[in-house]
Amino acid sequence: MTSPAVLAAVDWGTSNLRVWLLDAAGDVIAERKSGEGMSSAGAKGFANVLEEHLAAMSAPEGLPAIVCGMAGARQGWVEAGYLDLPARISDFAKAATPAPGARRAVHILPGLAQRSAAHPDVMRGEETQIAGADLGGGTHFVCMPGTHSKWVRVEDGAVASFHTAMTGELFHVLASQSILRHSLGDAPDAGAPTAAAFKTALEEMLAHPERLTSALFAIRAGGLLGNVPAGDAAATLSGLLIGAEIAGAVSASPGMHVVTLVASGGMAKRYAAALATAGLLVNLVDADAAVRKGLFEAGRRLYLSGASA
Amino acid sequence: MTSPAVLAAVDWGTSNLRVWLLDAAGDVIAERKSGEGMSSAGAKGFANVLEEHLAAMSAPEGLPAIVCGMAGARQGWVEAGYLDLPARISDFAKAATPAPGARRAVHILPGLAQRSAAHPDVMRGEETQIAGADLGGGTHFVCMPGTHSKWVRVEDGAVASFHTAMTGELFHVLASQSILRHSLGDAPDAGAPTAAAFKTALEEMLAHPERLTSALFAIRAGGLLGNVPAGDAAATLSGLLIGAEIAGAVSASPGMHVVTLVASGGMAKRYAAALATAGLLVNLVDADAAVRKGLFEAGRRLYLSGASA
Repeated sequence: MTSPAVLAAVDWGTSNLRVWLLDAAGDVIAERKSGEGMSSAGAKGFANVLEEHLAAMSAPEGLPAIVCGMAGARQGWVEAGYLDLPARISDFAKAATPAPGARRAVHILPGLAQRSAAHPDVMRGEETQIAGADLGGGTHFVCMPGTHSKWVRVEDGAVASFHTAMTGELFHVLASQSILRHSLGDAPDAGAPTAAAFKTALEEMLAHPERLTSALFAIRAGGLLGNVPAGDAAATLSGLLIGAEIAGAVSASPGMHVVTLVASGGMAKRYAAALATAGLLVNLVDADAAVRKGLFEAGRRLYLSGASA
Repeated sequence: MTSPAVLAAVDWGTSNLRVWLLDAAGDVIAERKSGEGMSSAGAKGFANVLEEHLAAMSAPEGLPAIVCGMAGARQGWVEAGYLDLPARISDFAKAATPAPGARRAVHILPGLAQRSAAHPDVMRGEETQIAGADLGGGTHFVCMPGTHSKWVRVEDGAVASFHTAMTGELFHVLASQSILRHSLGDAPDAGAPTAAAFKTALEEMLAHPERLTSALFAIRAGGLLGNVPAGDAAATLSGLLIGAEIAGAVSASPGMHVVTLVASGGMAKRYAAALATAGLLVNLVDADAAVRKGLFEAGRRLYLSGASA
């Protein structure tokens, strides 16, 4: 009674791997998650890791697979290159690179490169979320928050420009390696987006983003002088960094009034609240659904378009 | 023929210790430098460390000592507290705290605290450089660059307000702990302030400081796409962080046209060039001379004012 699997869809990031078996409608038949990201999968071999997961899911022999993310980096399975901007979303699949060694057809999608001397940038994996966000024609501004948050302008089905804010990595590095670690405690949690400390910090950066590097030190000074609780310190750090990110995106994106926010869970709530505070309208797209849909669309073009061999 | 020592002046920071023997005119008779900063001196005992250095300099028995810096922190020799703002420079000495255990009178100068809910801040050591900068009456804006750069407004002999930018620490943490380490190499050096990469990054931040967290990622992307040399990456990182610091200071300091820059060596050259690029006039004061002079003034008030016991 269940529909048969027609595609294995694989989101292979730096730290994590997710595999789905999808049917002809793109619906999920089975799903696996693993910590065997790009950084660790090399030891066992990327093809072996993927085959193990597919075997555990009873994937049919010969089921083709489509992969996005850091598995296509130089240090990954096979380097899948970059498409230059402007990059038509419908062209992503035909630029995919075959990956060797698996017992089936496997293609890895390319990343995107903005080869600008003033604002060079790269992405790998997020382009597939964009493809799955169903943007349609016209101009769209897409925010994909995370370790390296991506802000993307899409014009009539093509990625026109983007920039990356190091928000998530800055939070992690400052919380664990800088003097702020004394104020944030051992397991810093940015907390709820409704926290007063988050909102105050966010609003300060939206008004004065040029004060970021001194507002960071005020977290430490506030702890020394006033016994700010560790929870408030973490919420403040999160609010400062997200506020600075949004202020930078607003400055770099004239005409941005609506933001397509591609995110899930607590991250989605935090950014939705922050974008609203900045006066932006939010169109929320679930990140997990978007990457799956982007992979399915690319797989359909590559393997299932009826042009049989 | 040489003048006798009347004071031991001690600048005791987190990582380093400097001791001078000064004569009645405040001139240097002898100098010692050591890596026995606040972080490491506790093991041997602060009094023992100081006495060893003074013995090695043949300091007269009973020569009084005056100390500034992190030796007065909670984790230091003895907590020397903070003076609240506005803090008259001439009041620093009378708020000094006696330090126990040495074979002589030792006082540690207090830090300064800005107990503002919106912009809490602290300093410890830099207040003594301010005291030694001979500012005179009127309004002065003082920049003291470093791990935690201080920007201070002095009004008619009193510290009125200040803020701290985490510039030096951000450079270190990003260069060694973030993804930028792949672009900067093992021994990143910010290079000459005349480097084109430094100037380009500086000017970008002076014009668009709100783009700091995305300009940081562009260092990595530029390395991936264009083989930016490691030297350029380090100069870019330095230019971005110093540019953001100066943009923040300009925003926080209405009416600032002349900056008293208290710095030495390469740091002085880099900031002098950066401040000039930002359109500010620079009045350079050597940081080493300033801290010595500030310590001498405080020691004179405490021990040498003619009010013999």
